[in-house]
Amino acid sequence: MNLSQKLGHPEDTKLLIIHADDAGLSHSENRATIQALQTGMINSYSIMVPCPWFYEMASFAIDNPQFDNGIHLTLTCEWENYKFGSVSPITEVPSLVDKNGYFHKNRTEFINHANAAQVEKELRAQIEKGLHFGLKPTHLDSHMCSVGVSPEFLEIYKRLGKEYNLPVFINKQFVESISLSSEQYNYKNTLLADNLHIGDFSDFEKGELKKSYEKALDSIKPGFNVFLLHPAFNDNEMQGITKNHPNFGSEWRQIDFDYFTSNECKQKLKENNIQLITWREIQNIR
Amino acid sequence: MNLSQKLGHPEDTKLLIIHADDAGLSHSENRATIQALQTGMINSYSIMVPCPWFYEMASFAIDNPQFDNGIHLTLTCEWENYKFGSVSPITEVPSLVDKNGYFHKNRTEFINHANAAQVEKELRAQIEKGLHFGLKPTHLDSHMCSVGVSPEFLEIYKRLGKEYNLPVFINKQFVESISLSSEQYNYKNTLLADNLHIGDFSDFEKGELKKSYEKALDSIKPGFNVFLLHPAFNDNEMQGITKNHPNFGSEWRQIDFDYFTSNECKQKLKENNIQLITWREIQNIR
Repeated sequence: MNLSQKLGHPEDTKLLIIHADDAGLSHSENRATIQALQTGMINSYSIMVPCPWFYEMASFAIDNPQFDNGIHLTLTCEWENYKFGSVSPITEVPSLVDKNGYFHKNRTEFINHANAAQVEKELRAQIEKGLHFGLKPTHLDSHMCSVGVSPEFLEIYKRLGKEYNLPVFINKQFVESISLSSEQYNYKNTLLADNLHIGDFSDFEKGELKKSYEKALDSIKPGFNVFLLHPAFNDNEMQGITKNHPNFGSEWRQIDFDYFTSNECKQKLKENNIQLITWREIQNIR
Repeated sequence: MNLSQKLGHPEDTKLLIIHADDAGLSHSENRATIQALQTGMINSYSIMVPCPWFYEMASFAIDNPQFDNGIHLTLTCEWENYKFGSVSPITEVPSLVDKNGYFHKNRTEFINHANAAQVEKELRAQIEKGLHFGLKPTHLDSHMCSVGVSPEFLEIYKRLGKEYNLPVFINKQFVESISLSSEQYNYKNTLLADNLHIGDFSDFEKGELKKSYEKALDSIKPGFNVFLLHPAFNDNEMQGITKNHPNFGSEWRQIDFDYFTSNECKQKLKENNIQLITWREIQNIR
C-alpha cells in the first residue's frame, strides 16, 4: 500500500500538505499564519523554538490542537539585523554560533563550523523545550533545510524523529540540491515527500510568484506533495527583519499570505482534485 | 561644586536628560528611538541586551557615537506574549527565570526568587555582551528599576558601575517608592538624580499624558532632572508586545514619541531655560 492508500484514499490521489514555515519568527508571521490557518488553505505549520515570538505561537498551538503543528528545527539565522541563537547555552554548542552568540547566516557557514554532537544536542534542546512548554507536535522539519547539508546531520534529524515518534519532512531532490557533502545519504526506510513545491526567486523577481503557485497547483502529480510557504505581512516589522533580503522577504511573504487565503486558490484545489492531508494523519498510520 | 557647576553651568541650572528606555525591545521601539534622537528632543537612551532587536540598536549605537547610549540592565519581562530571558545560560541563573526559561514578570516575582550572586552574574553578562559587541556605553540603568527592590541588589548595580567606570542612574525617591525590602540603602557617595519625571497611568487613562509632560517641563526645578520615556509606534508589532498592558503600552509609547519630537516640546524647553545634558558629560567629569 502506498501512503495514499494507507490514508484511505485511492492509490493515485494527489495528496498535499500546504505548510507554513517560520511560525514564531515574528508577530507578523504569527498573525498571518494564524489567519491563513483559520480562513485560508494553509493546513499545517511549524514553529521556530529559538525565536522571539515562540511563546505566542506555541500558546496558540496548545489552544488550537485542531491544527497540524510541527517543530521547525532551527540552526541558522539568515537576517541582517534580527538575530537569534541556540536554545542550549552557547558554551555547550560553540560550533553553532558566531562571535556574538547567534546562529550562522547560511548553510555554508553552518557546515564549515558545526560539530555533529552539538547539532544533536541543540536539536534535542529545541524539541525538549517545545515539549516542556506543552506542545504536542505532529512533525519535525528543518529551517533552511540546514540538516540537509550532510548525510551525518540528516541521519541525526531522522533519528530524532524516530525517537520522539514524529514524522520528519524529507524531500530527496531538495536535499540533494542543497547538500554540501560529497557523500550520498541512504534513504532506505525513509518516508519521503515525493514532490516539494516552493517559490523560486526568479519568479518572484519577474512578479510571477503567484502565477508560479497557480501553475504548480495545476500540474500537481499523484503522490505525497508538500507546498512550503512563509505567510507574513509586508509591514514595518517584517521589512525590518528581511532588510536587504528580498528572497523570502516581506513582499514575498505577503504574496504567500494573499494567494493562500484567496478564493482563487480554494477553487484551484477543487478543480485539480487535490486532497489535503496532515502530518497528524501520517503520524497516526505509521 | 554641584553637578551643574562641574558641567560648567551656573549653580541653579535646570539640568535635564531626556531619556528613552527600552531600545532593543522591538523594531518599532528602535525606529521611534532613532527618529526621536535624530529629529526630536530625546538625547539619551539605553539598550536591552537580552532582547530580540538588540543587534539592530547596538549596531546603530556603534555607528552613531554622537548619541549618548547606555545599557538598560534587564531582569524582568513584563509582557504576556513576548518573552526574553537571561544572557547567561539558564542553568547558571535558575533563580532569575520562570519554568519556561524567561525572566519573571514583575519586581515581586523577581525578589521572591532572585539570588544575589546570580543577579550579579547576569548583570555582568549583559554588560560584557554589550562591550564584546563593540558598544562604548555612557551609563547603566535598570529596566523597571528591578535593582531597586533591595539594598543588596542596588549595591551590586552601583558596584558594577564603579567597576566599569559607568555612571548609574539612581533616583532616591523612586527607589524608595518601589523598594520591597525593609532595609534602608545607604546613599553615601552615590550620584543621585534629584528628580525623576515619568508618565503616570492615571494621567494616561484620563487622556492627559501629554498635558502631564507639559506640566512637568513647566515646573522643572534647578538640579539634575531625568525624564524617562518609551518612544515607539502604536503599530501591530507594539500592540502585540503590549497586549493587555495599557500601562506603558503602545498608545502610551506613541504619545511619548509624538510629544518629544514636536516643536511644542522644543519650545517648552527653551521657554523654561532647560539645559540638556548627557550621561557622557557626567561620565567625563567624575
